[in-house]
Amino acid sequence: MGVRVAVAGASGYAGGELLRLIAGHPGLDLVAATGDSSAGRAVTDVHPHLPAYADVTLRPTDVAELADAELVFLALPHGASAALSASLPAGTRIVDLGADHRLTDPAVWAKHYGGPYPGAWTYGLPELPGQRARIADSDRVAATGCYVVASTLPLAPLIAAGVAAPDDVVVVAASGTSGAGRSAAPHLLGSEVMNDVSAYKVGTHRHAPEIKQAAGARTLSFTPLLAPMPRGILATVTARPTGTTSADEVRQVLAEAYAGEPFVTLLPAGAWPHTSATYGSNACHLQVTVDGDSGRIVATSAIDNLGKGAAGQAVQCANLMLGLPETAGLTANGVAP
Amino acid sequence: MGVRVAVAGASGYAGGELLRLIAGHPGLDLVAATGDSSAGRAVTDVHPHLPAYADVTLRPTDVAELADAELVFLALPHGASAALSASLPAGTRIVDLGADHRLTDPAVWAKHYGGPYPGAWTYGLPELPGQRARIADSDRVAATGCYVVASTLPLAPLIAAGVAAPDDVVVVAASGTSGAGRSAAPHLLGSEVMNDVSAYKVGTHRHAPEIKQAAGARTLSFTPLLAPMPRGILATVTARPTGTTSADEVRQVLAEAYAGEPFVTLLPAGAWPHTSATYGSNACHLQVTVDGDSGRIVATSAIDNLGKGAAGQAVQCANLMLGLPETAGLTANGVAP
Amino acid sequence: MGVRVAVAGASGYAGGELLRLIAGHPGLDLVAATGDSSAGRAVTDVHPHLPAYADVTLRPTDVAELADAELVFLALPHGASAALSASLPAGTRIVDLGADHRLTDPAVWAKHYGGPYPGAWTYGLPELPGQRARIADSDRVAATGCYVVASTLPLAPLIAAGVAAPDDVVVVAASGTSGAGRSAAPHLLGSEVMNDVSAYKVGTHRHAPEIKQAAGARTLSFTPLLAPMPRGILATVTARPTGTTSADEVRQVLAEAYAGEPFVTLLPAGAWPHTSATYGSNACHLQVTVDGDSGRIVATSAIDNLGKGAAGQAVQCANLMLGLPETAGLTANGVAP
Amino acid sequence: MGVRVAVAGASGYAGGELLRLIAGHPGLDLVAATGDSSAGRAVTDVHPHLPAYADVTLRPTDVAELADAELVFLALPHGASAALSASLPAGTRIVDLGADHRLTDPAVWAKHYGGPYPGAWTYGLPELPGQRARIADSDRVAATGCYVVASTLPLAPLIAAGVAAPDDVVVVAASGTSGAGRSAAPHLLGSEVMNDVSAYKVGTHRHAPEIKQAAGARTLSFTPLLAPMPRGILATVTARPTGTTSADEVRQVLAEAYAGEPFVTLLPAGAWPHTSATYGSNACHLQVTVDGDSGRIVATSAIDNLGKGAAGQAVQCANLMLGLPETAGLTANGVAP
Repeated sequence: MGVRVAVAGASGYAGGELLRLIAGHPGLDLVAATGDSSAGRAVTDVHPHLPAYADVTLRPTDVAELADAELVFLALPHGASAALSASLPAGTRIVDLGADHRLTDPAVWAKHYGGPYPGAWTYGLPELPGQRARIADSDRVAATGCYVVASTLPLAPLIAAGVAAPDDVVVVAASGTSGAGRSAAPHLLGSEVMNDVSAYKVGTHRHAPEIKQAAGARTLSFTPLLAPMPRGILATVTARPTGTTSADEVRQVLAEAYAGEPFVTLLPAGAWPHTSATYGSNACHLQVTVDGDSGRIVATSAIDNLGKGAAGQAVQCANLMLGLPETAGLTANGVAP
Repeated sequence: MGVRVAVAGASGYAGGELLRLIAGHPGLDLVAATGDSSAGRAVTDVHPHLPAYADVTLRPTDVAELADAELVFLALPHGASAALSASLPAGTRIVDLGADHRLTDPAVWAKHYGGPYPGAWTYGLPELPGQRARIADSDRVAATGCYVVASTLPLAPLIAAGVAAPDDVVVVAASGTSGAGRSAAPHLLGSEVMNDVSAYKVGTHRHAPEIKQAAGARTLSFTPLLAPMPRGILATVTARPTGTTSADEVRQVLAEAYAGEPFVTLLPAGAWPHTSATYGSNACHLQVTVDGDSGRIVATSAIDNLGKGAAGQAVQCANLMLGLPETAGLTANGVAP
Repeated sequence: MGVRVAVAGASGYAGGELLRLIAGHPGLDLVAATGDSSAGRAVTDVHPHLPAYADVTLRPTDVAELADAELVFLALPHGASAALSASLPAGTRIVDLGADHRLTDPAVWAKHYGGPYPGAWTYGLPELPGQRARIADSDRVAATGCYVVASTLPLAPLIAAGVAAPDDVVVVAASGTSGAGRSAAPHLLGSEVMNDVSAYKVGTHRHAPEIKQAAGARTLSFTPLLAPMPRGILATVTARPTGTTSADEVRQVLAEAYAGEPFVTLLPAGAWPHTSATYGSNACHLQVTVDGDSGRIVATSAIDNLGKGAAGQAVQCANLMLGLPETAGLTANGVAP
Repeated sequence: MGVRVAVAGASGYAGGELLRLIAGHPGLDLVAATGDSSAGRAVTDVHPHLPAYADVTLRPTDVAELADAELVFLALPHGASAALSASLPAGTRIVDLGADHRLTDPAVWAKHYGGPYPGAWTYGLPELPGQRARIADSDRVAATGCYVVASTLPLAPLIAAGVAAPDDVVVVAASGTSGAGRSAAPHLLGSEVMNDVSAYKVGTHRHAPEIKQAAGARTLSFTPLLAPMPRGILATVTARPTGTTSADEVRQVLAEAYAGEPFVTLLPAGAWPHTSATYGSNACHLQVTVDGDSGRIVATSAIDNLGKGAAGQAVQCANLMLGLPETAGLTANGVAP
């Protein structure tokens, strides 16, 4: 008998990935999956890849449907989690995959999201120093944004170690299309996205302030790209060194930061991350070097935006919160080719 | 302590998928992974998506390396398995993913493969009538070809039930590129296969006689297509009815044939299989109807060519041979989107 | 000074391809491009790939906007062309890319489309026997459906020559996603279509009766597939021979049928068509053989669904109607890789 | 009767694109196409998308085959052009698509390429100030590298205007797979590149010094990415402003730099370049803004790496050298979707 969990917002891509992970998780039992426009539809109608849920129907997203769960995953649009969370029974643990409770600075919230500040929850990136224990002690966790995971894992240790300057960080990150969600929009049609790479929300993406907060950067140029694949983020993170540094030194910083981490792999020198290697997994692959011409530190990281970038990370947090093994129901092995 | 298994031919795509499945299998322990040209390389160098094998090195494919295994998976080129199998210790169970031991008719073998007939082993498609028990009683199993799985699962029950005629069956099946293997060939470059669908080996593919044997067809037109995706087979199988039939009747035949099967799903009427829904899984999705104009029975099936079409199926057979739960280490849930 | 032409329905994919071809056409001048929901928008806002129209704005689709054109291309949804055509000035030539005026049998129209029968226009496939002259003599031409072009070009000569039986033809044709149009629908999102092949409208697609009419088939099983690429159709057409035949004979039939045709290429024996080779062109590539097992004739053809399958074919017809060189503004050379 | 041209190295992707453009060029006649390993093969065997060359056979790459041409395009591997060029008849014009004659500084050449310095030819980027006239006066032109075109067009005017600092420029550029050439390599297989974005040659790519030279940058961090599409480069170029600047100002710099340029389009404010919009064309699309957080100028550009990045640009240079209209045989209209 596992822990009773529910997924609110189960009809989207992150919600579907949560359902997939829960189906393979030895310690979690799904008691409810909810959606709004899709309430009443069979899960397999919305997610034909999940025959494990052949007998499950999506329910409306409301408190009554979720009340029996010991832990609720929220995969809802921006702005929907605060009200719902407040209504859930007192002891219910919550992992929010949305952005509502990530930012710790009300002024930053006001600038990028606007409206009343919903307050910050424990930040759900276990690989940050001290964060694993904080998550384990929390019953409210705000999971990290997908671009933020990919950008922060290489960057945060370099800034923390004083090797990379926190100013003038430049991140260019290419994401698969599932990161843009499942709502039908003309620019996300297959005919439009195949054969295409493009930038969007240049300098205005809401993950930029979150990267700064999570990685300790002070100024950041963040350019997201849409790439012609369903999943995956490849982030290229460059930062100026604070002094003289070398490829060996920056590799050493990341090696030490992630020694023993089950889901983060610093690749051997000379090998560079491929998003395909993280497909369907909770893995993050890293590499870093120093550019001989500019002197900049250049790191790249690969994740599955729906895995370590969303649902995988959320399950990892849930495992910590519930006292389960952190890796339960998760894998670092990708589905490739 | 699990059953000791080895993978011979671990550097290719089917071999890599076997390693991935074994890593997540609760009852199997990998004791050796071998390759010829890649012997001496780290598994993670050849398969960067498999950090589970960070400490494992590929060994040469020879008997000494494989002798400690209780069960050996052979993912070798055509013609390589007979000699190796003969040299393995007497009690070693073998699942051969190659074609050497599939065909039961020496004349058919001679026509399509040539050379000395290596003899047939138990055919590794558990969903065929009576086959599950035979596999469980065997220590030599020849796993089914990828196109054969996709074509046979919809076709065999319809012929067996006497609803579809065994003559003049037409199969057109589109495969992802991993089905063509990992050898570098100009026509398999990404630049060539993206934006492209093409037919190849029209009427001459070696899976055609195997489909006839497995599905009980007498004459068959088989056209394989290469599709711009890494994984997946979508087979369109059409057959003439033996008499008057209907969509309901043909659906009923498949529904009965696969009731209770853990990996085969007949979709609800009106829904058609998508290869993406089987990505990374051991699932097969089916649908069937009767074409109102020609009267032909038209079925389509979707599998992952590396899953149910190769490594997943092989693990399923191994589970049966070893007395493990048939579904151990496998999933019917795909990785989508 | 070229012929004054207009495109009604210029915001969709076929309309955009018409604009692209007209921009490169030495004998046509665009005088109007219209759309309904996109009226008032710059052409380059809707089609950023067409800087040639930097100064052109889409107009509403109504007669006043189109009245100045000597020839109007209609790329409108089903049902919209009849009323509009009737209102255009008497001498205006029209090429309709929609289905309204293709079917010659009112009963077939009633069954597949319903509603009042709009009547048939000259059928716009110049490569059919005698059709080139009829198109040149017409001021109303109904361009052929995309799947119909790909299926008819290999099939019609084989049936006409008496080599292939008109009964029990089986066509399985894979199309790129632009064939499904530009309307935002969840199942056409890039996240859904990449990594996926699926069948749809099995046995019910409206191009099936049109294939029968155009190719002279009596019964037909037609299964369309959606393939993960923006453009291209690969049709696999199989038919039973009327008697003993051979690969040489069926190749000879197609070779004679298309000798001298500027846009149809029978590939050398052993080479099979690739959709990528026709990308962006008005070409059709063909190959045919006889399956040794079933005896079926198996042909495959490749076209660009927006080229020879829609806009290219329409321009080819317009050239004939206007007395321009048939190949003006068109190319048989694809954009590859 | 057009100018007699030849393509040396016609079997690769850039060579194929040259043949395609020449076939549609009103002022050029192909007199020879050569290849080494493919000599003796039909052009349509190597490039099935080019039926225009149904009667042309590839010849060996040697001087005798090329001697009749008035202008020779060299699409050869690095290092092959110097010897061949020296052997061609004195009056033969040459456009070299390789890197041998691009770099003006022997020390930079020695560092990045090594071996004897082959000398610099007129640099083939007509949009650089004064370069159009120099190309027109030259009989030896070194066409610009693909990444260099994409990076230089947005960057050079900003540095030249004194708005962007030449130090600490950061470029991250994603390329389609045809940029990696046509040689069969395991990492370029379709199975590997689909679903994948990865970085390669980080900080060591040979286009980095060429970008510095062409754009006037002093220090540069250049990270190339491989993207899952056949064609296209999307470059993200960021540079620090020299003082206070604004999105309007940087847009104005590019607007003035490229006013009247037939192939370079600065998109309307708010619209960002898509590689798909330049597919198959000689276009470059640009956009630029200022990142509010870091203050960095951020520009992105899209080109077709085989078009403006290789063959299109080479034809544009040839047109200038031959006194033909600069746009002859070229288009700014892409093939989309």
